[in-house]
Amino acid sequence: MTVHKKKNAFYAQSGGVTAVINTTACGLIETARKHGIKVYAGKNGIIGALTEDLIDTSKEPAKNISRLRHTPGGAFGSCRYKLKDLEQNKAEYERLIKVLAAHNIGYFFYNGGGDSHDTIHKISQISKSMGYPLVCIGIPKTIDNDLPFTDTCPGFGSVAKYVATSIREIGYDLASMCASSTKIFVLEVMGRHAGWIAAASGLATEKTGEPPNIILFPEIIFDEKLFLAKVDNCVKKYGCCTIVASEGLQNKEGLFLSDIGCIDAFGHTQLGGVAPIIAKLINNKLGYKYHWAVADYMQRAARHIASKTDLIQAYTLGKAAIEFALQGKNDIMITIMRTSDKPYRWLVGWAELTEVANIENKMPRDFITPDGFHITTKCRSYLSPLIQGEDSPPFKNGLPQFVKLKNQPVKKKLKETFRLI
Amino acid sequence: MTVHKKKNAFYAQSGGVTAVINTTACGLIETARKHGIKVYAGKNGIIGALTEDLIDTSKEPAKNISRLRHTPGGAFGSCRYKLKDLEQNKAEYERLIKVLAAHNIGYFFYNGGGDSHDTIHKISQISKSMGYPLVCIGIPKTIDNDLPFTDTCPGFGSVAKYVATSIREIGYDLASMCASSTKIFVLEVMGRHAGWIAAASGLATEKTGEPPNIILFPEIIFDEKLFLAKVDNCVKKYGCCTIVASEGLQNKEGLFLSDIGCIDAFGHTQLGGVAPIIAKLINNKLGYKYHWAVADYMQRAARHIASKTDLIQAYTLGKAAIEFALQGKNDIMITIMRTSDKPYRWLVGWAELTEVANIENKMPRDFITPDGFHITTKCRSYLSPLIQGEDSPPFKNGLPQFVKLKNQPVKKKLKETFRLI
Repeated sequence: MTVHKKKNAFYAQSGGVTAVINTTACGLIETARKHGIKVYAGKNGIIGALTEDLIDTSKEPAKNISRLRHTPGGAFGSCRYKLKDLEQNKAEYERLIKVLAAHNIGYFFYNGGGDSHDTIHKISQISKSMGYPLVCIGIPKTIDNDLPFTDTCPGFGSVAKYVATSIREIGYDLASMCASSTKIFVLEVMGRHAGWIAAASGLATEKTGEPPNIILFPEIIFDEKLFLAKVDNCVKKYGCCTIVASEGLQNKEGLFLSDIGCIDAFGHTQLGGVAPIIAKLINNKLGYKYHWAVADYMQRAARHIASKTDLIQAYTLGKAAIEFALQGKNDIMITIMRTSDKPYRWLVGWAELTEVANIENKMPRDFITPDGFHITTKCRSYLSPLIQGEDSPPFKNGLPQFVKLKNQPVKKKLKETFRLI
Repeated sequence: MTVHKKKNAFYAQSGGVTAVINTTACGLIETARKHGIKVYAGKNGIIGALTEDLIDTSKEPAKNISRLRHTPGGAFGSCRYKLKDLEQNKAEYERLIKVLAAHNIGYFFYNGGGDSHDTIHKISQISKSMGYPLVCIGIPKTIDNDLPFTDTCPGFGSVAKYVATSIREIGYDLASMCASSTKIFVLEVMGRHAGWIAAASGLATEKTGEPPNIILFPEIIFDEKLFLAKVDNCVKKYGCCTIVASEGLQNKEGLFLSDIGCIDAFGHTQLGGVAPIIAKLINNKLGYKYHWAVADYMQRAARHIASKTDLIQAYTLGKAAIEFALQGKNDIMITIMRTSDKPYRWLVGWAELTEVANIENKMPRDFITPDGFHITTKCRSYLSPLIQGEDSPPFKNGLPQFVKLKNQPVKKKLKETFRLI
């Protein structure tokens, strides 16, 4: 497909944000500027495209765009909004195309996870059927690392580094106290269906016995008896036990442990997390004193300990999105292709959107030890390159400095407003 | 008092460890070595002195001692063990002196918080009454920053930096999502009786409206109605609300909110944390979607984001302990004396142990805004210098590298063993 070079580009961030999604935006916008392409960003993701709330990034000083490289969160706003099937809500798609047309948009870049790539594929289809020329390119972003075809997803490497660093630090703390006090520490990490983040904590174990001692993956059914035996053995051997639990941990009935929850003093069900449930279980059955933490947004926002490899990949994919679009590629998700583990070498590739949609990339069984409680050497070889390198944001007054964009709106051109359902 | 220079020194770490307590150990041991004093460390704190489990730090290579500077946790082990009153358990004190005498120990250095300074004062008294010459010096350490006479406590500045950095990062994340998703974030931080850590998060608010929007201090009784009105107002004004809650938050009945707990599916009371309780309360009353995190040990172990100011002070106090001891000072806690806010200037001072014991330094009321939900300019002037400067530990393979000491035991000299009660 050829799109006239004078066309504008649309860029939106989708789903849960990461420490480096703005780095991708930075790569994309800086590269677009070099090619004379104006980038309109969706305010709050795809919702901005529907409501014609566009942000004119060309009005943002170059210095601000450059500072996106080290700013966590989503600078234009993100959302969890999945377009319905074409048959169910054609009006939504038609509206979208109408907005794009009104603003002379020929490139559609969507920066997100699995759902986003499903959405962009649908938009690509509708634009074709409506005869509106639109280059549609998906750029992966997800801390969960659960997209297919790409070696990793920008955002994941930084969470991985945060989690492995934190559990190592906690391990030193716990070991100091365990002779006479706390013997158990449980850290809950994200990953509802795929255990990549929990697995990454395993990188902190460089020698046998080093924390984390036990990793609980969503891919492995939680077996209380086996688990408690492992914990007890660990405490007896090392004096304490450091555990990383994925929020998506399930029991043999297929229930999320965090969904079981508990009832608070006001009679309300208290959801999440897994960490206190696991910690309390150990205390009840084995009597050990415990502490627990839930990292939640801290892990995905922790720009201060981002992986340099992750940052480079995030930037490169944003840049590649523009370059691929100009080369005439369409209906693709950009990917990272690993060519070597050690030294880590990778190239930018792509996958057809038709193939990407709705496939969830879980941990292979051979990445998890036979007993189900740690990672294998194979997994380590895969994960290790992703956390390499440090890239501190600028600090001032003792705190990291991030940019808040001006986010100047593009003047609306359509008379009709659009109400989201 | 004069102690023969050829006497050995005893050093022990006490209570909850910090990101920089080993930095103090490093300063103390390196300085002792320069003066030809051999340092025996208590294995697992004061317990090691009672059971004659001493570690010969002179057998540790200088390189390892130097690496203590950037290693979190307590390298010799710590404990929460408070010696009883002299009348209640004289045998314990006599045993302690016996162990010190057996190993020719003339200097007693104890690195801890309020309880530890009470203990060291008692040891100083008993040594005098038993006619055993012993120089007793306390070195402050507590993330809670609740010791009197000292401008701050080593360990606190690094937690302060971690908490302020994390809430700023979370703020960027939350702001990205709030238009269509999560609007509330609650971060629980340590501080059972004093709100210093919660207060430190307020440093992230450089302009009105910046996170954290609300801080909940243990010094301010939790008023549900006022709080919910504040949250609602904040969401309406800024689109979201970022809250930092101290674990020690109490209701008007004087109960810790975290102690109210809730009953889990197995019928067990689930203690802590405050964060889920606050988050769920907001959801029930105002309907906003929420996320929460509990930092727990992560905050006090986070050496990767330690404050350089904190590190320098931690090292300096360790060094000063030896120097003061050699100058003949005794029965003191070493302190940091602030001479100027801006530029921050400080000196090493000391306080008499008789005056230190069991005083808890809470937040002054004029450090908290009149509405009770944030910090004042006065508080900011006090806190800001403490988080200045970064000092990254060495990284290898993407992770911070810490030292594990060999911790060679000192050969026992006493025939009798001692059983802890």
